[in-house]
Amino acid sequence: MRGNFGEHFRLTIFGESHGSAIGIVIDGVPAGTPIDEAAIAADMARRAPGNDPTATARKEADAVRIVSGILNGRATGTPLCGMIENTNTRSSDYAQMSARMRPGHADYAGRVKYHGYNDPRGGGHFSGRLTAPLVFAGAIARQLLAVKGIAIGAHIAAIGGAADTPMDPVHVDAAALAQLRGLRFPLLDPEREAPMRAIVEAARLEGDSVGGVIECAAAGVPAGIGSPFFGSLESVTSQLLFSIPAVKAVEFGDGLAISALRGSAANDPMRFDEDRVVCTSNHNGGVTGGITNGMPVLLRVAIKPTPSIAREQQTVNVLTGENEALSITGRHDPCIVPRAVVVVESALAVALCELMMDDAANNALK
Amino acid sequence: MRGNFGEHFRLTIFGESHGSAIGIVIDGVPAGTPIDEAAIAADMARRAPGNDPTATARKEADAVRIVSGILNGRATGTPLCGMIENTNTRSSDYAQMSARMRPGHADYAGRVKYHGYNDPRGGGHFSGRLTAPLVFAGAIARQLLAVKGIAIGAHIAAIGGAADTPMDPVHVDAAALAQLRGLRFPLLDPEREAPMRAIVEAARLEGDSVGGVIECAAAGVPAGIGSPFFGSLESVTSQLLFSIPAVKAVEFGDGLAISALRGSAANDPMRFDEDRVVCTSNHNGGVTGGITNGMPVLLRVAIKPTPSIAREQQTVNVLTGENEALSITGRHDPCIVPRAVVVVESALAVALCELMMDDAANNALK
Amino acid sequence: MRGNFGEHFRLTIFGESHGSAIGIVIDGVPAGTPIDEAAIAADMARRAPGNDPTATARKEADAVRIVSGILNGRATGTPLCGMIENTNTRSSDYAQMSARMRPGHADYAGRVKYHGYNDPRGGGHFSGRLTAPLVFAGAIARQLLAVKGIAIGAHIAAIGGAADTPMDPVHVDAAALAQLRGLRFPLLDPEREAPMRAIVEAARLEGDSVGGVIECAAAGVPAGIGSPFFGSLESVTSQLLFSIPAVKAVEFGDGLAISALRGSAANDPMRFDEDRVVCTSNHNGGVTGGITNGMPVLLRVAIKPTPSIAREQQTVNVLTGENEALSITGRHDPCIVPRAVVVVESALAVALCELMMDDAANNALK
Amino acid sequence: MRGNFGEHFRLTIFGESHGSAIGIVIDGVPAGTPIDEAAIAADMARRAPGNDPTATARKEADAVRIVSGILNGRATGTPLCGMIENTNTRSSDYAQMSARMRPGHADYAGRVKYHGYNDPRGGGHFSGRLTAPLVFAGAIARQLLAVKGIAIGAHIAAIGGAADTPMDPVHVDAAALAQLRGLRFPLLDPEREAPMRAIVEAARLEGDSVGGVIECAAAGVPAGIGSPFFGSLESVTSQLLFSIPAVKAVEFGDGLAISALRGSAANDPMRFDEDRVVCTSNHNGGVTGGITNGMPVLLRVAIKPTPSIAREQQTVNVLTGENEALSITGRHDPCIVPRAVVVVESALAVALCELMMDDAANNALK
Repeated sequence: MRGNFGEHFRLTIFGESHGSAIGIVIDGVPAGTPIDEAAIAADMARRAPGNDPTATARKEADAVRIVSGILNGRATGTPLCGMIENTNTRSSDYAQMSARMRPGHADYAGRVKYHGYNDPRGGGHFSGRLTAPLVFAGAIARQLLAVKGIAIGAHIAAIGGAADTPMDPVHVDAAALAQLRGLRFPLLDPEREAPMRAIVEAARLEGDSVGGVIECAAAGVPAGIGSPFFGSLESVTSQLLFSIPAVKAVEFGDGLAISALRGSAANDPMRFDEDRVVCTSNHNGGVTGGITNGMPVLLRVAIKPTPSIAREQQTVNVLTGENEALSITGRHDPCIVPRAVVVVESALAVALCELMMDDAANNALK
Repeated sequence: MRGNFGEHFRLTIFGESHGSAIGIVIDGVPAGTPIDEAAIAADMARRAPGNDPTATARKEADAVRIVSGILNGRATGTPLCGMIENTNTRSSDYAQMSARMRPGHADYAGRVKYHGYNDPRGGGHFSGRLTAPLVFAGAIARQLLAVKGIAIGAHIAAIGGAADTPMDPVHVDAAALAQLRGLRFPLLDPEREAPMRAIVEAARLEGDSVGGVIECAAAGVPAGIGSPFFGSLESVTSQLLFSIPAVKAVEFGDGLAISALRGSAANDPMRFDEDRVVCTSNHNGGVTGGITNGMPVLLRVAIKPTPSIAREQQTVNVLTGENEALSITGRHDPCIVPRAVVVVESALAVALCELMMDDAANNALK
Repeated sequence: MRGNFGEHFRLTIFGESHGSAIGIVIDGVPAGTPIDEAAIAADMARRAPGNDPTATARKEADAVRIVSGILNGRATGTPLCGMIENTNTRSSDYAQMSARMRPGHADYAGRVKYHGYNDPRGGGHFSGRLTAPLVFAGAIARQLLAVKGIAIGAHIAAIGGAADTPMDPVHVDAAALAQLRGLRFPLLDPEREAPMRAIVEAARLEGDSVGGVIECAAAGVPAGIGSPFFGSLESVTSQLLFSIPAVKAVEFGDGLAISALRGSAANDPMRFDEDRVVCTSNHNGGVTGGITNGMPVLLRVAIKPTPSIAREQQTVNVLTGENEALSITGRHDPCIVPRAVVVVESALAVALCELMMDDAANNALK
Repeated sequence: MRGNFGEHFRLTIFGESHGSAIGIVIDGVPAGTPIDEAAIAADMARRAPGNDPTATARKEADAVRIVSGILNGRATGTPLCGMIENTNTRSSDYAQMSARMRPGHADYAGRVKYHGYNDPRGGGHFSGRLTAPLVFAGAIARQLLAVKGIAIGAHIAAIGGAADTPMDPVHVDAAALAQLRGLRFPLLDPEREAPMRAIVEAARLEGDSVGGVIECAAAGVPAGIGSPFFGSLESVTSQLLFSIPAVKAVEFGDGLAISALRGSAANDPMRFDEDRVVCTSNHNGGVTGGITNGMPVLLRVAIKPTPSIAREQQTVNVLTGENEALSITGRHDPCIVPRAVVVVESALAVALCELMMDDAANNALK
């Protein structure tokens, strides 16, 4: 249940990692919207495995079959279903371990919830592979936003504790974000790449994994988007961000750090820039009272290290009732952070579509 | 719009800080539930201002009038409306400044969204005062959870950068949480109270404010609650937590810090404790794959410093079109963190009710 | 649960007939909308009892207290709560019978659902009195629609089997609908009033009651409102219409009668009226495929006879476990149809607001 | 937009009649539920065309591919996607007429809503073919209900004005309903089949079509299911029933006819049948106050005559701007009523699942 997102730009994700196919139904793409399938493919490729040494060697084509909702390159306005057939799955890697609950994974929690009937192969519906449909939705959302002058981009803010230069919260522009999107290992300071890769490689060699932080921004978001309380930009966006497997923290603006500031330092002074109101700092990440204030929207998410590791771990065997040791074999990403960058961007893109549509509904009957 | 929370335990908040009244409609309290009004009053008092030097001197009775849904001390099963009349409002303090947008507040964002028609008095619908209805709902949610053996409690994890001892993530018990709830300034290490108060007092004397961090736990939550993706425990809970004005970050388990760990350190090993599966650490905060694993649920939220400060700030006057300086007068909390503790607990209590009801619905037709 | 309506123009109804108060929260009224309180009062008066011999002699002021969401005569854009205090309740009339389940009422069904804890006084949350908040919402919805050139009106199509002249389905104009709204006993053929009243009076004298049919139209609805399947105009409107206690049938266009026609008679031929597309008949009631086609929207609802009757009925006493006879005393409407006219109009007005807002959201991101 | 149904048993329908495929995602099937694919196929066959002279000669296999949510014959508990590939489509029959708006169809309404971008082939997303996924969902829902002792069945109550014997509203049993489900042309009085078929055949020969009425019952529904107001059994069920293309009226119990009765005739007397409360009549169709009372749930829907007819009709050509005559060629059902029987049953089955799950959620936290 609660498998749907949204009231306006609605997403319904389905599928299991090693089942027949995975997919998504998107309801809310305006009729007539030209759909740029090359741009979708580009985003899908950013998430796809097999393209970088930080990622699993599995190859997934992740080619999306458009089942409905697009005709002659344009959205029909009715539910748009995109599907990705599952191929190249080596379930035997996973089958042997299904009785031993993998630490850090949803194996045990899912087993209790679904009374043992969920599909354990490859993580089933819990698999990070299910973020591929979210990227598909995000790629479409991004196209809708682009027409409104909104651009979204993200970088690897940290891997294994090693940080990139943070974004300038006040000056974020669309061109810089587009440039980031072109990078397979998006950093603001390219000199950080080598040390970060070294951290990942060291972990990989030890059969271990590392996590990281992704910082994401949206430029060009007009003021007035979002609502107080349950429909706050942070509420809606965090619902999506925490849907991404492995996300354990979400921050807006200064986030955790703002809690150590004084009000005089945390408040963003305002001034007129010609007839536009701007802030001279952006500790609030472009959102106050749950509503955008016209400054760049800025957020960070913490990604935990990939739980699938080769190193031996202690766990339970639910069939034998014994405590056992487990070494996870198979192909796994020592670090999913680079592949997760586009997933985080997608979540923000979807949230902004939802909220901008909400705002239009609000104002429809004036 | 999007002013509602929930599909099962539904909340609809209404009211403006200095309007006629504020309130909430709760749909989903089971018929026949005995409602402990004294426990509600106790929670309301924890949030109410005027009880501590860290808070505003305004007195708000915050007595909740039960308008519907309770008969002879038990829930009727139909929508339960609780209302708090607004009294003791000194709007003149605020009226003078409504043209000057208060930095860090929703004044400007709200003005754009509502085209200048929202109620500016006391922050209107954006006011922290609107968390009182949320505490009312949380107090009822907590009673429902108590019957299921679930206890929720929180402490001030930090104020102005000064930290309390963190909770032991593995051993959280109901009695310890109950003890915390009895404290007006809840800390695990009582020796931290004096330095924290000194930080607040220093800020107050300088016409400034400070923020902080609240750590909250739920003990006794069974495994299997929550869903993957959009209905994850983190997604649903964060929607509520980010509804609380001033919250800028939400973390589960190790949160941001987990991003710097290796998988071998972040994964929580499992073992049988008699026939119960337990983890020997709790970096995941009791949630994997969006679903509880039977360990304590642990989260932290960052509260920004109160934006209402006496110190002069630079801002815009939207009527004159001029940049102007602003000193906010009136009664304001130099630190809202102590009062926000019960609000955070309430959000978690509501989220758990929602998700446990969802789980029951899932299993209804077996 | 499911006590809310809508995704855009959201309603949350609360209250019990003889409790403290009843009310509604409306989320979705655009900020800045001027609210005509006199027009609201006029609609409330149309529903209020005590104004006509067909209705109960109880007097209910039904004055709505605006608790939130309106400032200086305009909507603030945040949730609008209207509340009606309960006064003049004579619960003793009802108390004596709460053990004997009234036939045709929700007493028994409600007792099972709520395990005996629901408020039985005056029907509690099941009372027709709860339609007063719906009329309040409808009165506001009507004002929003009026700005878009949409007018709604209804008449008594039948009482106790005696029919009024049906509406001309092709030619419905706003002025004629406004005229109907000015009548306490709205009929297209005023000569039918005396015989209808005679039917009601005859039933009343025999301690009995009668039902009827209400026909309702909306003029000026643009083509393109509504969706196929679950969001069809008929789906959304019927959800609201069947929320009205005593409604047992809902028809659009020719309704039941269309099932006996051939396609060649039921299809509405189209032609250009200058550059506007019109139909030369309106068997479909202005809706095809769930979407408006620009013709008047036409519907009828069947209202069952008031179940509260003085005549002796056979029923069960749930406390004694005996079959018993029951004569309902107290003040009851021998016919609620005249008072229900404005409730039906309100349901259609709310549905149209919801769907027009949905359409605006759909088109927001083009 | 509003393309989803439900909060607990959630449906998301996608697809266009002559697109790549159509399908549905069902969220809420309990993990571990054995899925009887033969029973699904049997229901699909009841709806499928090509099996009866009343129906179109098109053959549609309507074989459902289970894309997700079932493993080893049991539901996994995660979203269940069923898909039907589109084959054997002869779009050329339709293509020629896409500029001429078919009377009685959604062509014009849809064109306005979707700005001309919707898929016109075969009616696109408006096609009756989209009821196939609903039947798939209904077949699963029926299996869930069967375990709870609930059976659903329906018959052709009328075709072209010729009526079958009505159901006995008080005595409806599961065996009789099962027997109806086994009939391709389900009638209570088999002697009515020949005259009904003659009516259909006469229409067909004249290039015309006929509509009809379907009466549907559920036996074994416990008392206490449904809610007052927006979640009434009638509200939720009618939302689904009016989603079925061609439905123009929905009645519960006596429906329209109850409006002509007196209260003393319409109220259903109650008595104890051992310790069970029963009614001695069932004018209310098993529902009072929106909640089931333990009597059979009874409803009727009016189906309009198939709008696709060969006879010449007057309409508009939206490309030329001219009024034109139109004769629809291609294969069409002269009467869809027999095929719609299982669709109506499916809608009721889905509604009951939704409401029973809602009831379980309500009672979860006692």
